[in-house]
Amino acid sequence: MAKELTPRSENYSQWYNDLVIKADLAENSAVRGCMVIKPYGYAIWEKMQHEMDRMFKETGHSNAYFPLFIPKSFLSREADHVEGFAKECAVVTHYRLKQNPDGSGVIVDPAAKLEEELIVRPTSETIIWSTYKNWIHSYRDLPILCNQWANVVRWEMRTRLFLRTAEFLWQEGHTAHATKEEAIEEALKMLGVYVDFAEKFMGIPVIRGIKSANERFAGAVETYCIEALMQDGKALQAGTSHFLGQNFAKAFDVTFMNKENKQEYVWATSWGTSTRLMGALIMTHSDDDGLVLPPNLAPYQVVIVPIYKNDAQLSEINEAVGKITAALKAEGISYKYDNADNKRPGFKFADYELKGVPVRLAIGAQDLEAGTVELFRRDTKEKKSIPLEGIEKYIKDLLPKMQQNIFDKALAYRQSVTREVNSYDEFKEEIEKGGFLLCHWDGTPETEEKIKEETKATIRCIPLDGDKTPGKCMVTGRPSAQRVVFARAY
Amino acid sequence: MAKELTPRSENYSQWYNDLVIKADLAENSAVRGCMVIKPYGYAIWEKMQHEMDRMFKETGHSNAYFPLFIPKSFLSREADHVEGFAKECAVVTHYRLKQNPDGSGVIVDPAAKLEEELIVRPTSETIIWSTYKNWIHSYRDLPILCNQWANVVRWEMRTRLFLRTAEFLWQEGHTAHATKEEAIEEALKMLGVYVDFAEKFMGIPVIRGIKSANERFAGAVETYCIEALMQDGKALQAGTSHFLGQNFAKAFDVTFMNKENKQEYVWATSWGTSTRLMGALIMTHSDDDGLVLPPNLAPYQVVIVPIYKNDAQLSEINEAVGKITAALKAEGISYKYDNADNKRPGFKFADYELKGVPVRLAIGAQDLEAGTVELFRRDTKEKKSIPLEGIEKYIKDLLPKMQQNIFDKALAYRQSVTREVNSYDEFKEEIEKGGFLLCHWDGTPETEEKIKEETKATIRCIPLDGDKTPGKCMVTGRPSAQRVVFARAY
Repeated sequence: MAKELTPRSENYSQWYNDLVIKADLAENSAVRGCMVIKPYGYAIWEKMQHEMDRMFKETGHSNAYFPLFIPKSFLSREADHVEGFAKECAVVTHYRLKQNPDGSGVIVDPAAKLEEELIVRPTSETIIWSTYKNWIHSYRDLPILCNQWANVVRWEMRTRLFLRTAEFLWQEGHTAHATKEEAIEEALKMLGVYVDFAEKFMGIPVIRGIKSANERFAGAVETYCIEALMQDGKALQAGTSHFLGQNFAKAFDVTFMNKENKQEYVWATSWGTSTRLMGALIMTHSDDDGLVLPPNLAPYQVVIVPIYKNDAQLSEINEAVGKITAALKAEGISYKYDNADNKRPGFKFADYELKGVPVRLAIGAQDLEAGTVELFRRDTKEKKSIPLEGIEKYIKDLLPKMQQNIFDKALAYRQSVTREVNSYDEFKEEIEKGGFLLCHWDGTPETEEKIKEETKATIRCIPLDGDKTPGKCMVTGRPSAQRVVFARAY
Repeated sequence: MAKELTPRSENYSQWYNDLVIKADLAENSAVRGCMVIKPYGYAIWEKMQHEMDRMFKETGHSNAYFPLFIPKSFLSREADHVEGFAKECAVVTHYRLKQNPDGSGVIVDPAAKLEEELIVRPTSETIIWSTYKNWIHSYRDLPILCNQWANVVRWEMRTRLFLRTAEFLWQEGHTAHATKEEAIEEALKMLGVYVDFAEKFMGIPVIRGIKSANERFAGAVETYCIEALMQDGKALQAGTSHFLGQNFAKAFDVTFMNKENKQEYVWATSWGTSTRLMGALIMTHSDDDGLVLPPNLAPYQVVIVPIYKNDAQLSEINEAVGKITAALKAEGISYKYDNADNKRPGFKFADYELKGVPVRLAIGAQDLEAGTVELFRRDTKEKKSIPLEGIEKYIKDLLPKMQQNIFDKALAYRQSVTREVNSYDEFKEEIEKGGFLLCHWDGTPETEEKIKEETKATIRCIPLDGDKTPGKCMVTGRPSAQRVVFARAY
């Protein structure tokens, strides 16, 4: 095979990097921490966008667009918010370059210094709430249900393709409501949308929960999240939805006349998912031969490779494939026919396995005679001969089964490494093995901090579903309302 | 009417601003020169994106994503390019804020100064060609056909919503080719896509042409463009496609092994359209009552307004409308049913006229009895009673007629103000009346500059189609290869 990956068992982290590069998903750019998303990787992200966007619109949201830049003073208005983001901001200070009088090239023109510095948005609560102030006067103007697809910048020191980059792409929903109850309902509704998207499209089982205070979004009253588990036993936060209370309304003085004719601060939510999901997708399903894509997000679900010895054979195969692709198209199945003659079939096979194409059809002269085609399933690596007649129906049946199989496999793995742990000694031992540990915790930031320092594990969430039996904290013995989910995380 | 616009005849510029604000398309933000695109305006932009994206993919292009930031040194590599963009750059110099020790808030942390400043992309040729260097080795790697949907920043001093903003949204295609001929063919192909999009979707007739050297993109060998004419007689450049020659390949040392086994520099194109098209759409079709949207780009093509005196009537109407909307949906016609009870029908009528909804249906108790509905066409303002039975077929027929009518009207206007002018004295008089003036020009930047200084008119393009008869320059009397298009422009 031309493009071998480091095996996962040897070095999981290197395997991930190899895969991202060799499957043409993304690469590092000349700008520190910023990535280039390559066409194949971007095509997967577009599929994700398309499905999420549809789900947002079905739940009543509209897209809008707010400025890239945030005046420095805006960021400061909400105390927790600025504390959370100030340390990793790209700051625009000037608006012009000029030729260096010494002829050495362009320099920043000192005469073009901004009166107030602008921050490249790390998230848009502040600029959006400064805008909402003009949109909201009465309860009749509420709710406002906006989403934005945008790039954001957080100056991370250690970056990894998709998982943590200085610039990333995301969507951020920002909603405004007349009551606390309605805002909480919205935050939970969008969490539900994220669960559906992760499970039905990405094939990733997730745990819905609430973040502890330590892990809460800077400026939120409550952060809800979905947590996924990667194959190496580490957790990955796959989406968050925040109930922001009246924090940003107060910071930007956004009030409305309620039905009782009284001025009240507006209630808010925000919720987001990002290109980080690409990392989750890769690490949940892929194997040592490359990417494994769920059919629902594959840029093309089927690849067809001809096997021929001469032009006459190729032209016969081309004709047969013409019928197959017409039938696939009629069934709404996406495909690619690769009859490029500068690569051997074996190379193509390996390359499409690397790229995670769900179904591969190989068709040669013998197949044509027999009226069959060789079908390869990327998820199970099964290969079998299938009648050409009705192949489109066979694949139409197969794709949802593969989608389900990928999900089931990820769920079975997660279940196999999710366990209850009752003592801190046991915890220290078990955390080394990875997976989700369900433990009692006394609810204090101090205990959480101690566990993090001593074991590198964090509370991923306080789960919303499942066992709610109270118990005693594994560290302090103090009362615990329910088990929470611990893991080491990306 | 609640939201009156300044009439065009009184103040065209004010009419435009009023319309953008009152039709909820966009507004100025707290950040100088940056706009907020509101949900209704963004929905139109999304429709544009959707159609253009489809056309790009049908012509073999893939989307990708490149970094927001460009190292300062990259911008300098192509001499014309840096000259063109250095004067209007947002420059990132620091990557952290910190609390001011005096307790007055956050300040830029002087310890977090970047070694090399980063420019917020004004366009992406430089960062993309620095990337392509690693993608291209042999003629087998070519062509590369990428497009990017992104935000860009050009620090304009005088800004106007959509027409000229510091940050705007756009698409930028960047392609790499093995031969000059192929690159020129690509640049012209994409110009053709822009013509199709402008004429068939936006309903805007455009002139295809070549820019004079003065108006060429900074770094291009040739700039092709489409030029539209606004209702006030001013021109607006609606899209450009550049043949970049080997300029960026040379600047970033991007070579390939050609079929003759020789190293050669790669040939390039780039092409773009932006949210400026929103300005063109508004100014081409709209009237003193508001926006006029071509049905192909309307967020909803039909709005239905119930007229009722009591709940019993409303509930009857709701039921009838349920059938209409089901029938519209089956025909692929988008609609909105507005039975909100906090606004009177007259207010709604005016509001949807302002928003440019192509077709309005008003339905009352009397209509129900008669089995009719009142249909209002936004483009002609005709109102008539139509049988309820088969209303969806009627509208399905009507929408393409409206699309054509809008285009025809714009074309007729353009033709009425496009004329040949043969002397410079006549030119000075005629240019005051607006419109396109077809004139002979000696081909020199000096003459073009003189005309611009004396009349504020620029050469919009050297048209690719139409009359190619040579003549004599209206200013200098020197030979002219063909008439070129002059106008004052946005």
